[in-house]
Amino acid sequence: MVNWSNMDTLSAYDALTKAKKVDLTEVMAGENGAKRVKEMSVAMGAGLSYNYASKQVDETIVDALADLAKEAQLTDKYAALYNGEVVNTGEKRLVLHQLTRGQLGNDVIADGVNKREFYVNEQNKIAEFAKKVHSGEITNAAGEKFTTVVQIGIGGSDLGPRAMYLALENWAKKNNHFKMEAKFISNVDPDDAAAVLNSIDVAHSIFVLVSKSGTTLETLTNESFVKDALKKAGLDASKHMIAVTSQTSPLAKSSDYLAAFFMDDYIGGRFSSTSSVGGAVLSLAFGPEVFAEFLEGAASEDELAKNDDIRKNPAMLDALIGVYERNVLGYPCTTVLPYSQALSRFPAHLQQLDMESNGKSVNRFGEPVNYKTGPVIFGEPGTNGQHSFYQLLHQGTDIVPLQFIGFKNNQLETDVNIQDSTSQQKLCANVAAQIVAFACGKKDDNANKNFAGNRPSSIIIGDQLNPKTLGALLAHFENKIMFQGFVWNINSFDQEGVQLGKVLAKKVLAHETDGALAVYSQLLNI
Amino acid sequence: MVNWSNMDTLSAYDALTKAKKVDLTEVMAGENGAKRVKEMSVAMGAGLSYNYASKQVDETIVDALADLAKEAQLTDKYAALYNGEVVNTGEKRLVLHQLTRGQLGNDVIADGVNKREFYVNEQNKIAEFAKKVHSGEITNAAGEKFTTVVQIGIGGSDLGPRAMYLALENWAKKNNHFKMEAKFISNVDPDDAAAVLNSIDVAHSIFVLVSKSGTTLETLTNESFVKDALKKAGLDASKHMIAVTSQTSPLAKSSDYLAAFFMDDYIGGRFSSTSSVGGAVLSLAFGPEVFAEFLEGAASEDELAKNDDIRKNPAMLDALIGVYERNVLGYPCTTVLPYSQALSRFPAHLQQLDMESNGKSVNRFGEPVNYKTGPVIFGEPGTNGQHSFYQLLHQGTDIVPLQFIGFKNNQLETDVNIQDSTSQQKLCANVAAQIVAFACGKKDDNANKNFAGNRPSSIIIGDQLNPKTLGALLAHFENKIMFQGFVWNINSFDQEGVQLGKVLAKKVLAHETDGALAVYSQLLNI
Repeated sequence: MVNWSNMDTLSAYDALTKAKKVDLTEVMAGENGAKRVKEMSVAMGAGLSYNYASKQVDETIVDALADLAKEAQLTDKYAALYNGEVVNTGEKRLVLHQLTRGQLGNDVIADGVNKREFYVNEQNKIAEFAKKVHSGEITNAAGEKFTTVVQIGIGGSDLGPRAMYLALENWAKKNNHFKMEAKFISNVDPDDAAAVLNSIDVAHSIFVLVSKSGTTLETLTNESFVKDALKKAGLDASKHMIAVTSQTSPLAKSSDYLAAFFMDDYIGGRFSSTSSVGGAVLSLAFGPEVFAEFLEGAASEDELAKNDDIRKNPAMLDALIGVYERNVLGYPCTTVLPYSQALSRFPAHLQQLDMESNGKSVNRFGEPVNYKTGPVIFGEPGTNGQHSFYQLLHQGTDIVPLQFIGFKNNQLETDVNIQDSTSQQKLCANVAAQIVAFACGKKDDNANKNFAGNRPSSIIIGDQLNPKTLGALLAHFENKIMFQGFVWNINSFDQEGVQLGKVLAKKVLAHETDGALAVYSQLLNI
Repeated sequence: MVNWSNMDTLSAYDALTKAKKVDLTEVMAGENGAKRVKEMSVAMGAGLSYNYASKQVDETIVDALADLAKEAQLTDKYAALYNGEVVNTGEKRLVLHQLTRGQLGNDVIADGVNKREFYVNEQNKIAEFAKKVHSGEITNAAGEKFTTVVQIGIGGSDLGPRAMYLALENWAKKNNHFKMEAKFISNVDPDDAAAVLNSIDVAHSIFVLVSKSGTTLETLTNESFVKDALKKAGLDASKHMIAVTSQTSPLAKSSDYLAAFFMDDYIGGRFSSTSSVGGAVLSLAFGPEVFAEFLEGAASEDELAKNDDIRKNPAMLDALIGVYERNVLGYPCTTVLPYSQALSRFPAHLQQLDMESNGKSVNRFGEPVNYKTGPVIFGEPGTNGQHSFYQLLHQGTDIVPLQFIGFKNNQLETDVNIQDSTSQQKLCANVAAQIVAFACGKKDDNANKNFAGNRPSSIIIGDQLNPKTLGALLAHFENKIMFQGFVWNINSFDQEGVQLGKVLAKKVLAHETDGALAVYSQLLNI
């Protein structure tokens, strides 16, 4: 039986606040620094590793974090979640995204079905469909193969799948897994859909409409936009569209779609990349085998997250270091810095995953909490960011914890050797250099050239970004965020904060406004 | 004569900290809210307007901001800058980016030339070159027209020009100004260059190598990468490349380039979109007339920034409200939320512009300051962000000031009417609704559904995103950031914080490391 208690009621949290702080410029210097980098590393799934040598922690603080993890019953809460308890208390729902990639505990029966079987069944349906599209068994009306898949969705139906597609596009091209180009339409801005439609050959495109409820304003609007375009091109829209939706949605049994694949209420949009939401577009783009490997990578990370020992549970360790940075050290933001151009949109996905999950001010019982919760998340790929916002990270007045990600090898295996090093070596040299520059700083008599150091970072290292490592990477962050929500005693699985804007936007469109809203509407010509 | 004094020595700043705070849920309610939205608006250049009704200010606070602007001598400092004083004291350089788009004060003579004439001359050279490329007077070796332009640059040579290109791509297509597609290679990650090269027809591509010093690691590496590819395709690289560099750089007179266009030390990378750095790629992509209009829009905003009256100087007002939020109200971040898919990378550009300029801890004399300077900047286009990180913005434990941008009309003029409104109306309805939701909130007995409100925002409104409004928008933020730097008494025009990482990366590549850096290098296989 687990206790859901606020973090500031836990004695381990109190102890953590009193633990002696670590000065990185001291501990990371010389041989001690080398020792830390060798030792402060945890194996992740799919061969990745999480190195936290440059975090402001030592064995004493990690022990305190372990105590907090234990008192907050983090692995028990995780077990409650994957065994099918109603952990999303706000919406009274189970939380089952991990079940899309493996059976972690008991069978979970909901809505009268075994949910693992349900998810696997949808995966199989998608795999079968994708294979038929690739083989030419399913074609357009003229009997020609589809060459492009276009996802229509927003938020979790867009950011995650898009980030995953971009992460694997070059890998798939290099390894003969590239089946179809994917594009994404998300914004209700009509120029988004129009620009995507102008860039593709609609006659050879298959559209994936993704909406759990079948009522998302942006998605339905963009669906109509696309149907209009198909009609104008003399095409039958129902032969070019599939739906990913819940079984109870109006889209589920509509004849407007070639096929429908299902999701359910137990997987939030931002956690849905491993469900049908990511499954349809990724299986069409890269083949179902690639999607299966991606799930395998995620499953390996989910298994690790069960470990009671914080030193063997990278997601839990990362989560608790983040809590320490947020609540004890008082840092308001975290930046995600993948040294991999393929991960260009991964920070945007994590921005949603983290900020939508843990940007809450009330605990899971609806009572205000007295401590900070989720931080602001932002990031861009390195080395690009180095030439952009790193100035503030190095010398600004606020400290921003950094999450680096690096791979020993690139994806396309094309490279050049200039001044005795390859581009990939230069890329990796830069991330190593940045970690040390941030941690250790460098004294200079000219204060303008002085680097105070003590700016904490961790790095996730892998051999190469591929479906398995990507799955592990994604699940690591999903699980980290889950654990942080448990520590903060908040519900990471609802998003009530998005409702008010929707209600007011409807009023504006119905011209039922007064006061400030009426004048803003006028100014914007609505 | 201007006085460069720290903000906390100014009596107007002290008075500002004591001014009565504004409760937005109170002042934005009912008719008073409507009155604020009507009145609290300042005309910007190119027909834009800056509306600050939903900021936590009232007439008393704006008066206090006006006093601070006066005591900090903001317009005098701006005049000193555009009249050619050495305002970048760290690097002992003039700061002349505004001069690329107009003569704001005295002639500025440096390096023995009239700098305005120098910038105009480069613009004319670029215009002539671009026209010859478009007309087919300059072609590839086979006598065929170039169809694609690829910018090779990083940081300021990438983010600004890329954001501007994306902002105008659809507009240009719609209005018959689209001459050539543009692509960008920036990251030293070899997969970046390889993927771009795979996506284009190199035989019909012209590459713009952008490096002021001619020594930027990433850019030179990517140049070699591209030259390799051209060679492998049997092409003469020197017939496919132009350089944008300083007159003293090794690239300036090299026969490796079809042509060279010049920049100088008086324009920092992040302020260089209106110099040759943006000029070459944008003139090739859209024609020099479009680039000229973009400069015109920026110039109109630069003129407005001269105004001593804060209520008629939108950049100065925006700057001071930002200072108030950062230093008096204590907000650590600001988010930029354009309701326009075309501005998808505009927040990334502002992220560099702001964080690299004002992420400093020492004043312009190299002495530590005792107050917060530049905030963390992040953002994504609306309505996408609504389905992502807005949860935290509405209900998180930190308040994040919001900068909305909205346009009455879209660019492609294709739209659909669904449920009695167009997509463009839905887009605008959403931004209006969000402003009011953030400011006013909504009481609910269920704390999980409660919106506290009091979350400040401003909005910049325009008729349409086009070259002129884009220029005004860019210059607004450049000038805002400049004014904030003046208030904080920091040098917004250097970037010493990027040096240490470069030095250490070189050591890694030369295998001259020990301690932590040596072990990180091993872990990353360097």
